[in-house]
Amino acid sequence: MAKFYGIGTGPGDSSLVTVKAVETLQNIDILYTPESKKGRESLALSIVSKYLPADLHIKSRHFPMNFNEFEKEQAWNMVSSEIVEDVKSGKNVGFVTLGDPMIYSTYVYIMERLMEDIEVETIPGISSFSNIASNQNFPLVMDTDPLIIIPCTMEEEKIDEAFEKYDCIVLMKVYKRIHMIIDKLKKYDLIDYAILVSNSSQEKEEVFTNLRDEHIDEKISYFSTILINKNNKKR
Amino acid sequence: MAKFYGIGTGPGDSSLVTVKAVETLQNIDILYTPESKKGRESLALSIVSKYLPADLHIKSRHFPMNFNEFEKEQAWNMVSSEIVEDVKSGKNVGFVTLGDPMIYSTYVYIMERLMEDIEVETIPGISSFSNIASNQNFPLVMDTDPLIIIPCTMEEEKIDEAFEKYDCIVLMKVYKRIHMIIDKLKKYDLIDYAILVSNSSQEKEEVFTNLRDEHIDEKISYFSTILINKNNKKR
Repeated sequence: MAKFYGIGTGPGDSSLVTVKAVETLQNIDILYTPESKKGRESLALSIVSKYLPADLHIKSRHFPMNFNEFEKEQAWNMVSSEIVEDVKSGKNVGFVTLGDPMIYSTYVYIMERLMEDIEVETIPGISSFSNIASNQNFPLVMDTDPLIIIPCTMEEEKIDEAFEKYDCIVLMKVYKRIHMIIDKLKKYDLIDYAILVSNSSQEKEEVFTNLRDEHIDEKISYFSTILINKNNKKR
Repeated sequence: MAKFYGIGTGPGDSSLVTVKAVETLQNIDILYTPESKKGRESLALSIVSKYLPADLHIKSRHFPMNFNEFEKEQAWNMVSSEIVEDVKSGKNVGFVTLGDPMIYSTYVYIMERLMEDIEVETIPGISSFSNIASNQNFPLVMDTDPLIIIPCTMEEEKIDEAFEKYDCIVLMKVYKRIHMIIDKLKKYDLIDYAILVSNSSQEKEEVFTNLRDEHIDEKISYFSTILINKNNKKR
């Protein structure tokens, strides 16, 4: 029976792909890859390209990254129907997605559309925050502490609540709200326990340990993550 | 210059090790492995054993898993001194640890003892909760929601707070407090959005989707994790 495989590629470095992902990529007939802009090669594809058989059929499909829900759902529906058709015709089909497929990934919207019709196997990947923590030898959480992962697109008062209550925090999607976040880190006395990493595991990776730097907003990229651990002395 | 490598092995399945971990394991001179009981092979070692060169020098070291802080610190100090000595004598040294090294891992206590004396590189691994989510096609968190990861050894009132406030929750170390946790899941109307996985990615893996089962406490193992997502219809 043919099957569909959703494959987490990890954060960017090809060597952070799992052995299972590599083996799966070598045994599929068709690979779907998400393109955020038409014609631009997907980052997920570039991460795994060294593992792909030369004759693999690659189908790049455009996924609009905007706020038009209708347009997005249409794209997900179209890609999903295509995948179902391919699997039902006996092809093993893969789909690559950045990081971990179950944590803030559009992959979920594809998966949910497939599950009634075909067999779906999802393969986990290294999350960007987990990679940043290891790269920086920065313990995320220990013992009886909880860890909270916050997208900075969340309502502001909920961010305040989390900053008040928790010691171990990952902040994702920091870029657009960097000023607000830095102000809050100061207010809740978290700023000396935080590091920011921009473009993690890509060529232009930069690590910022001094978040009191007044020009930090000019230096960071769209792909920026902050790790906070109040029990962790900053080096 | 010789170096120390802390290597996350992922949750249990050898194929969930990263390519980077495999390459590192093939280029070290000595591998330290943690034994929780004297003489019992470490789970972390069994996960990576198929990737190890035949002539690799393996040093199994006992890490007591009890509440005697002094005994534990003594063990960490001894292993750390040994590692520093090995690296300073020109050997590349590895240390394997279950799951991800930066999330609830004793590895951190070794790492912190080494960082002043030798170069330390940490390699991330797949967390058990991320593997369970993918295996079950269970989305952990999407869009603007936060994700909170809770060790059930945490103070009870903090568990209540988290259950009241958050929709996407991972519960680790469930075993000893399973009754209390199930009662709270009912109270906060989370029980129909939760799944429990026992012995994830090991031979005796079991998935429980009905957490209203009154005999669930007799069926689960020490290695049990609960995933909750209120935005996710249970299948």
